[in-house]
Amino acid sequence: MRFSLLIGVFLVLINSLLAQTQDELVIKEIFDNVLESQVAYENLRILCDKAPGRLLGTEEAAWAVDFMKAYFEELGADTVFLQAFSTPAWIHHSSRVSMMAEGEEIELSADALGPSPSTPTNGLKAHVIEVQGLEELKELGEDAVMGKLVFFNRAVDLKHVNTFRVYTSAIDQRYHGPRVAAELGAVGALIRSVGTRVDDYPHTGSTGFKEKRIPCAALSTIAANQLSEALKKNQSIEVSMFIDSEDLEKITTYNLIADLKGYEKPDEYLVVGGHIDAWFNSPGAHDDGVGCVQSADVMRIFKELQLKNKRSIRIIMFMDEELFQSGGNAYADYCEANGIVNYCALEADAGGFTPEGFSIDAPDSIFQILQSYHELLEPYNIRYIKKGGSGVDIYPLKKLGVPLMGYRTDSQRYMDVHHSAYDTFDKIHIRELQLGSGNMAALIYLIDEHGF
Amino acid sequence: MRFSLLIGVFLVLINSLLAQTQDELVIKEIFDNVLESQVAYENLRILCDKAPGRLLGTEEAAWAVDFMKAYFEELGADTVFLQAFSTPAWIHHSSRVSMMAEGEEIELSADALGPSPSTPTNGLKAHVIEVQGLEELKELGEDAVMGKLVFFNRAVDLKHVNTFRVYTSAIDQRYHGPRVAAELGAVGALIRSVGTRVDDYPHTGSTGFKEKRIPCAALSTIAANQLSEALKKNQSIEVSMFIDSEDLEKITTYNLIADLKGYEKPDEYLVVGGHIDAWFNSPGAHDDGVGCVQSADVMRIFKELQLKNKRSIRIIMFMDEELFQSGGNAYADYCEANGIVNYCALEADAGGFTPEGFSIDAPDSIFQILQSYHELLEPYNIRYIKKGGSGVDIYPLKKLGVPLMGYRTDSQRYMDVHHSAYDTFDKIHIRELQLGSGNMAALIYLIDEHGF
Repeated sequence: MRFSLLIGVFLVLINSLLAQTQDELVIKEIFDNVLESQVAYENLRILCDKAPGRLLGTEEAAWAVDFMKAYFEELGADTVFLQAFSTPAWIHHSSRVSMMAEGEEIELSADALGPSPSTPTNGLKAHVIEVQGLEELKELGEDAVMGKLVFFNRAVDLKHVNTFRVYTSAIDQRYHGPRVAAELGAVGALIRSVGTRVDDYPHTGSTGFKEKRIPCAALSTIAANQLSEALKKNQSIEVSMFIDSEDLEKITTYNLIADLKGYEKPDEYLVVGGHIDAWFNSPGAHDDGVGCVQSADVMRIFKELQLKNKRSIRIIMFMDEELFQSGGNAYADYCEANGIVNYCALEADAGGFTPEGFSIDAPDSIFQILQSYHELLEPYNIRYIKKGGSGVDIYPLKKLGVPLMGYRTDSQRYMDVHHSAYDTFDKIHIRELQLGSGNMAALIYLIDEHGF
Repeated sequence: MRFSLLIGVFLVLINSLLAQTQDELVIKEIFDNVLESQVAYENLRILCDKAPGRLLGTEEAAWAVDFMKAYFEELGADTVFLQAFSTPAWIHHSSRVSMMAEGEEIELSADALGPSPSTPTNGLKAHVIEVQGLEELKELGEDAVMGKLVFFNRAVDLKHVNTFRVYTSAIDQRYHGPRVAAELGAVGALIRSVGTRVDDYPHTGSTGFKEKRIPCAALSTIAANQLSEALKKNQSIEVSMFIDSEDLEKITTYNLIADLKGYEKPDEYLVVGGHIDAWFNSPGAHDDGVGCVQSADVMRIFKELQLKNKRSIRIIMFMDEELFQSGGNAYADYCEANGIVNYCALEADAGGFTPEGFSIDAPDSIFQILQSYHELLEPYNIRYIKKGGSGVDIYPLKKLGVPLMGYRTDSQRYMDVHHSAYDTFDKIHIRELQLGSGNMAALIYLIDEHGF
């Protein structure tokens, strides 16, 4: 009896060691493959080149979906389909801001925020109130604001190490500023771009209107400095603003879904995705073309290495993360309506820089299993697997009880490019991208292999 | 008695908590300063712009030393001096390689290795043997090699995650190839550049001759591919090589040393440094202009924040890391001869990318103290403090028993730029650089504060 117990313990031990070794071998194979593959990188080059500004409802967005669809078909996905849904859309045609200073009209580098309404056809012209934030504006009150253009010019706080925190330090101006200005009677709003550089690239983004909307735009940090300097010299200068945009009440658009069928539990989906849309002013290389091609690369890796997956791997190119988050919501609704089981969901939407970790939004028991994989992924630059948010597109799956995961990267360069024309393909480093695909594939492999 | 013991324990505890909090506060202050400072970044811009190719013995090297000397004086260092020493030097004037293929002379992008001898004034022209490494060459033997130009064309192994390992996978060809080829009677040697990209930038570097030297150069990876393709079509094509270089038997040159005097133990030096020289073909932004300006920034931070240092902080701009390592050796000799006590030494020579950690070459007891600082530095992107090498310039201090430390950064982009014209200032990211200065200053602060 005691001998057989010993044997039992021994076998369990051997088994666990073998599993560990097997995992290490597979993960090594994944990285050997990915570090020599140019596929994801070259797909991204095409995406940025052929479909910049692929915002919801644009031809570029449709082109991007078609391109990735053809890629999944060529790759030999078992199923590739467009999940259609209806949503309002907002189309940007053009933005222009200038100031009259010392008798000269000076162009200020600017891009409309989404969904800014159009100005009158001839633009609008108004005096400007510069404020350093929402509180200051509220204190000024209606009398001071009525009929004016409000200029939110508080700079980001660069002292945070993580640039998402730098971003958060000033994002209230972009998200809430135009709404509050509108409520106080302003005719328009300008915000200082929320980014880490002083340069001439405006960083756009979404703004949260309620009932009343006013034309609004982001100025580049250089333009914001120019305007602020001009106002110091002469408070009564006027700024002209022209925005041509279009509200579409309802369009039909798509999430692109590609499945690699599982051999044991084909009806359970391991979701991996990024968002295919990008702001009108941007090639969307880091945000989020890279997340799309890395997600697609997870399928390529499983196919090329013939890693047999028990559950189905589902790669999703989500539409419309940027404006109304309609794609993520539509996918969750579709799953709920059709009883589709998502075993877990992983989103890559933090740029294609050197891997940093995974952040997990899941019950403790699952979190602990995921965290136990840290050691296996550490040699591939994963610093942490910790609790935290996942991604905007997969977040609606939370209410269906799906464990959520976000791929995180080194943030230092992200807010240089975010939502701007500076987010170009040449900012992508092939090895940094490849390490991302590899870690995402490795994590999906481990989850599929060992389950929760 | 028991009560006083309790009080004692309580006081020790409070003390240790206060020390921890105090450290955290100082480190926060350091990063608050450095993340808003442009000084190191702007110094580096000037260094790369005004003194590219600042190899030992050049005017550019002298200019760089003068520039940093003036900076330390302006900063208010207590002592700034040039530590003179004599060394042989090697000066590169020009390199040119071309092949005759299909009746055409095709230029191949190339830079001489150091210290390659000159070719005859009219260059040399020879048939080429392509090999994939030293073993293959040795097997071919003298009969096959005599009178030929040996072309080492094994590519790096991209499958390593750390690019220093990618580098190591092919560096034997550059370091030993020309010597072995010379010993077998070759008239010259070409090596495939040791880097992570396929591009047209040659990556030079030092090669280890013994008695016999032959002209040798690195081809860009594109040029290496061109030559290899041409040889596949026609084994008997000839390659022309022209190198104009100069051996100087003995020159006088300098390490630049700037001290910030300690208030308690001024004769114990906390050494922080990088190397001021850079290859003739390169602006030397990441290698190692950035290490120089980050080291200098440690002094700026101590001065600006008025962090009182017990021991003297000694910033060294080492001359000649690249060719003969004469500066590092000269400093160690100078310390030995003059009984100078270096309490520890930290080198930054791994590029100015996002911080990764510190690697420590010191006795266990000291290593453990250093490792205990990991937690304090982790919020600032330090992933590890682990055992390992330090830096080429401070290594000679090891025999004097000095604890050595190397600052490490994310390696993904380093071997793209290393020893090439691609190592330009625009490859430097200000925040990544700033986090390096901050972590170096924080580590020096902790060592000075708590001692070993």
